[in-house]
Amino acid sequence: MTATGRGPGRPRSERAEKAILEATLDLLAREPGVAGVSIEAVAARAGVGKTTIYRRWPSKDALIVDALGSAKAPLPRPSGASARQDLTEIARALADERGRGHLRSFWNVLGGAEKHPELYARYRKDVIEPRCAMVREVLVRGVETGELRADLDIEVAMSMLIGALTPRNPRESFPDGYAEAVVDALFQGVARARE
Amino acid sequence: MTATGRGPGRPRSERAEKAILEATLDLLAREPGVAGVSIEAVAARAGVGKTTIYRRWPSKDALIVDALGSAKAPLPRPSGASARQDLTEIARALADERGRGHLRSFWNVLGGAEKHPELYARYRKDVIEPRCAMVREVLVRGVETGELRADLDIEVAMSMLIGALTPRNPRESFPDGYAEAVVDALFQGVARARE
Repeated sequence: MTATGRGPGRPRSERAEKAILEATLDLLAREPGVAGVSIEAVAARAGVGKTTIYRRWPSKDALIVDALGSAKAPLPRPSGASARQDLTEIARALADERGRGHLRSFWNVLGGAEKHPELYARYRKDVIEPRCAMVREVLVRGVETGELRADLDIEVAMSMLIGALTPRNPRESFPDGYAEAVVDALFQGVARARE
Repeated sequence: MTATGRGPGRPRSERAEKAILEATLDLLAREPGVAGVSIEAVAARAGVGKTTIYRRWPSKDALIVDALGSAKAPLPRPSGASARQDLTEIARALADERGRGHLRSFWNVLGGAEKHPELYARYRKDVIEPRCAMVREVLVRGVETGELRADLDIEVAMSMLIGALTPRNPRESFPDGYAEAVVDALFQGVARARE
């Protein structure tokens, strides 16, 4: 998950890393959003020296993108058994993410996207795109195996799945069985089956 | 659209109202979001006196909610001809909204939702809920007429439609035919039809 790609450090440095990522998310969640995050502010909040941060992250952008990535649940690797099974597991992971409590951080980064285009591009590339690529891969394989319609619009199907599982409201949480219901509706469609 | 429910004023006061709503959206789009909006700041930006604002909006919250509402395209009233036709028209209106350039304002309000719970509740009630209610109404009628599956999960179907048409990226715009492709996938489902 870290931009430096280093392996896990000693326990003490892992604790410091966790504190730094949490401090970054907390600062991002405040109203000034990206503008409220500085290496100084993160260091003060995490109780570490600035050098500790610079040793791991070469820039503020790298730190913010890693912090956002750390707040996302890792999506399960598709098993390849069936598109339905793989999409159900991905949907469950997406539904569970909602409760993680960092929505404000994400919305504030989206809100600042035009003001911080390089940071936003990096966030798309490192955090969002790999997740979209995984869903696309499952859908494409499903078309190849004949489980899914040959004329399926992959981008539309991906947007329906991810869109239905993207929180639009910071209060609500998804009811039990919601992820499965989304996959079911995605597979069957809403139209009454022709007799 | 206004909180006061007054009818249209004279042209000069309509111009002032438009300037006030635009100024509010512009201030909301800045990084401090809701915290950056004050009646003083809106008055200065819109080039009107504070009294002109207070005459129309009793509070800052009422002004912000009206400004957000004014940035949403009005959804077409369902004709009742068919669920498919009505959902296609709603989907087209949602897809077109994306280009309206006020995404940052919305994200910044979402980002501040926990800090400004009353404002957020009012925004949900006045701006979001009536739109959800309209989609629900079309889906329920479709089930009643037999056009849609009797066991349809209305909330799931609504989330798939609205979710797929909610911008997740401030740069992109939806390709031509996207709204229709979403409705098509929603109706048919992604699974290959059984022979």
